[in-house]
Amino acid sequence: MRKQERATRTRHALIRSAARQFVRQGYAQARLVEISAGAGVSAGALHFHFESKAAVADAVRGEAGRLLREAAALARERQPRALQALVDMSHILGQLLREDVVVQAGYQLDCDPSATAGGAELHEEWLECVDRMLAAAASEGVLGPGVDRGDLVTVVVSATIGLEALGRHDGTWLLRSSLTGFWRWMLPSVATPQALPGLCPQGDDLVLSASGRPVAGLMTP
Amino acid sequence: MRKQERATRTRHALIRSAARQFVRQGYAQARLVEISAGAGVSAGALHFHFESKAAVADAVRGEAGRLLREAAALARERQPRALQALVDMSHILGQLLREDVVVQAGYQLDCDPSATAGGAELHEEWLECVDRMLAAAASEGVLGPGVDRGDLVTVVVSATIGLEALGRHDGTWLLRSSLTGFWRWMLPSVATPQALPGLCPQGDDLVLSASGRPVAGLMTP
Repeated sequence: MRKQERATRTRHALIRSAARQFVRQGYAQARLVEISAGAGVSAGALHFHFESKAAVADAVRGEAGRLLREAAALARERQPRALQALVDMSHILGQLLREDVVVQAGYQLDCDPSATAGGAELHEEWLECVDRMLAAAASEGVLGPGVDRGDLVTVVVSATIGLEALGRHDGTWLLRSSLTGFWRWMLPSVATPQALPGLCPQGDDLVLSASGRPVAGLMTP
Repeated sequence: MRKQERATRTRHALIRSAARQFVRQGYAQARLVEISAGAGVSAGALHFHFESKAAVADAVRGEAGRLLREAAALARERQPRALQALVDMSHILGQLLREDVVVQAGYQLDCDPSATAGGAELHEEWLECVDRMLAAAASEGVLGPGVDRGDLVTVVVSATIGLEALGRHDGTWLLRSSLTGFWRWMLPSVATPQALPGLCPQGDDLVLSASGRPVAGLMTP
């Protein structure tokens, strides 16, 4: 049991160390010896867990996906209204992209031609999530009558993915204020006049603080 | 004179060949020997023009920037109304990202950590262009009274950069129809009711066809 715990912990440390290397140097230039050193383990320990650099990258993307799904599930659980839950999720995604190197690396690997064999999994997942939440909002009757849901999905997904791409060089794009500005712009043309006053473009503090991440910078707009 | 012409043509061929390699394999894995072979010249000829791979990448980004500035200037010249010119420019950008490997490579290099020393130049240029066009639209009096220009710049830049990132794996994100959907969504909350009927979310055909690029797929929504 303790042995397995230690193995899990080592695997986790290797994933974090690999994520740091991928973000810093890109996938192609990251070296396994630096990944194992960064995790404080031997090259042999790395090879016990991962047979190749591609396998490490897969694990990083898998872990990023898990973190995002967990955060989305939590927002959905705490927030009964689908449209507000989508706003909250986008803020949690922004927060993870600012603060979590595994999520940063996962998105970066998604558009690195030297790393991607399987395509853009995280982009796909986010697209599906946005689509699902807007479908739920529609069935709650809170989308305005003229709303073309297809166009809306395009705008929300492209803007959030764009903030991620811009945020790599300049973290201010991922601040809570950028996403708040986006939703402040969008919500009046998305929601019915009845639903609008109850919606917070800056995200619901209770949901965001419950996401279990360090909240530095999160509680200030 | 003819010698200089040939040198210019070789340099141009090297830039296109490098762009193809960067898009296909990423910067870190692209090899100079493949770049020169792809341009049909010797390794020596490559070294006559460029002293390193970083210098080739700089030239690719420079050329991508030049193409974008040229297209933007042309749209601005043909289109007196700033807001429509911005719509037209976004369509031209989408078209260049679909069809021109140098522009594709330029944007990709902008977010490849193994290639970027100088930051995200093309993103910056696009941001400045959007900002300038919206300022011009404001002084033409066609922005609605409640429009927060800062929020609007954030939405337009992030959505267009996001379409670029998504378009790398799935070109349908860069189709004219995606950008049309974006503007169809945006324009009613951007423009005054007086200006709105005169605006085409699908871009002005005359301006787009004058951009001097192959127009396949461009004239159909």
